[in-house]
Amino acid sequence: MQTNSLQGVFAPVLTPLDADMNPDVMKLAARCQHLLANGCDGIVLFGTTGEANSFSTLERMVVLEGLIEAGVPAQRIMVGTGVPALTETATLSADATRHGCAGVLTLPPFYYKGVSDEGLFRSYSQVIDRVNDDRLRLYLYHIPQISGVGISLGLIERLVKTFPDQVVGIKDSTGDWQNLGAILDNFPGFGTFSGTEALLLKTMQKGGRGTISAVANVIPDQIQALFQNWQAPDAESRQADLMWMRDALKGVAAIPALKTIVAQETQDPTWEWVRPPLTSLRAEQKAALLQAVAS
Amino acid sequence: MQTNSLQGVFAPVLTPLDADMNPDVMKLAARCQHLLANGCDGIVLFGTTGEANSFSTLERMVVLEGLIEAGVPAQRIMVGTGVPALTETATLSADATRHGCAGVLTLPPFYYKGVSDEGLFRSYSQVIDRVNDDRLRLYLYHIPQISGVGISLGLIERLVKTFPDQVVGIKDSTGDWQNLGAILDNFPGFGTFSGTEALLLKTMQKGGRGTISAVANVIPDQIQALFQNWQAPDAESRQADLMWMRDALKGVAAIPALKTIVAQETQDPTWEWVRPPLTSLRAEQKAALLQAVAS
Repeated sequence: MQTNSLQGVFAPVLTPLDADMNPDVMKLAARCQHLLANGCDGIVLFGTTGEANSFSTLERMVVLEGLIEAGVPAQRIMVGTGVPALTETATLSADATRHGCAGVLTLPPFYYKGVSDEGLFRSYSQVIDRVNDDRLRLYLYHIPQISGVGISLGLIERLVKTFPDQVVGIKDSTGDWQNLGAILDNFPGFGTFSGTEALLLKTMQKGGRGTISAVANVIPDQIQALFQNWQAPDAESRQADLMWMRDALKGVAAIPALKTIVAQETQDPTWEWVRPPLTSLRAEQKAALLQAVAS
Repeated sequence: MQTNSLQGVFAPVLTPLDADMNPDVMKLAARCQHLLANGCDGIVLFGTTGEANSFSTLERMVVLEGLIEAGVPAQRIMVGTGVPALTETATLSADATRHGCAGVLTLPPFYYKGVSDEGLFRSYSQVIDRVNDDRLRLYLYHIPQISGVGISLGLIERLVKTFPDQVVGIKDSTGDWQNLGAILDNFPGFGTFSGTEALLLKTMQKGGRGTISAVANVIPDQIQALFQNWQAPDAESRQADLMWMRDALKGVAAIPALKTIVAQETQDPTWEWVRPPLTSLRAEQKAALLQAVAS
């Protein structure tokens, strides 16, 4: 199994839009630099929180190139590349790898439901074969509550055995400690990230690498402080102290809510814009959220 | 509301692959011609049965162009164009419209689940705005058991009111007569197709247009005979007589099963190939299926 150096706190960065609902690359680059300067070890470009699948393959490649040209270090970018068509996943993964990005975070093909592990294995295999680049570092992305297609322990095992230098980690976004704990138990040395900062301490205690958390878009410094101090005597209370933001987000749609918080933080209301099918918060939701965050 | 002339029996044509798991355009063109000569009024290119979402936008555009160059009449092709990114849906829809295709069959964006009708309305609106072509004829595609995102009566109503010349019909693939009947009751004159031949007679009796049925890949002539004779005294028994193929397909995955039947019919075993994440039938499933179909 490949040991991979990626660790720490990653923000699946929100994607700012212009008035035509297209990605605003310069604003995104500035936000990435802000996050990297304020507690993030890296960012995930085009994760679920970044509205990845609402953008075309071409849009995604143009944005990545723009970020790198604007000075965001490729080695601190992990790129979401999983779409339903394996050829398109391969194109996105090859592009990110060619740019020198730290890794790719790759959903299984998610249109057909109830597909077999054999079919998912073949899909990832074909992606890896088509990328055909030794520098590829692929992180599996397990978020079945949204994608509708999960990644079993058996699939991880088979992929890691077959592609030890390419399949180097996973993000488990279920928030289910039983599943995340089982991954950590079964695959020591694998690059396992919790998809929620709520399980960061437990993840580190079992040998995980850190967290890729939507909440790191707004409180990266606090999450980084826990990551730095997970072996300290006050780690439990640091973990508990983190939970206020997740509590404030309860009951509202996470992506528009996080964009609303960033709009407030940056005093830039255009941050509230989301691409359909997502919608921005209603006025009363926004007011309640900002009050909860301020208190 | 736009009255649109499309009606009859449409096959969401299976996509044959070459040894590299890429679409075999010439074989597909021949199959389309076969279906059109044997009972299909039209074909749907890149529906769910055609493994649409397993192919990239570029692959899909290349295949459509190849079919038309090979002589498949564009006016008899409806093109599946719904993907999670509205920009990509717009690209595919504009391309099909520019080619003079009969219409587009458009899934809602299906990555995010639990999205609002408002968000779906905005997504379809942006697609229509970005296509910006009066010739666009868009059919909504309701298949929530696979896509995870459905199309409500309220959403249909709002889209039809706002875009009467563009949003001209729907394919309801739930197999749920309550939903399909409600669409037919609420939107007389709308181009409503049943997604299953099992509801063809009922659909016609309530003023529907016909069926877009996976089973039309293998028994188009029998389904066409019912369509032609839906007002005849023996219509009920014709409907009942159709059901044998659906019965034969019970308990196996429909797409590889239909490909297996076409492989047998054409004596071309490469028809069995499916692109991951789908997998071909196991030997014993194949044997049982072919026996059921032969009997």
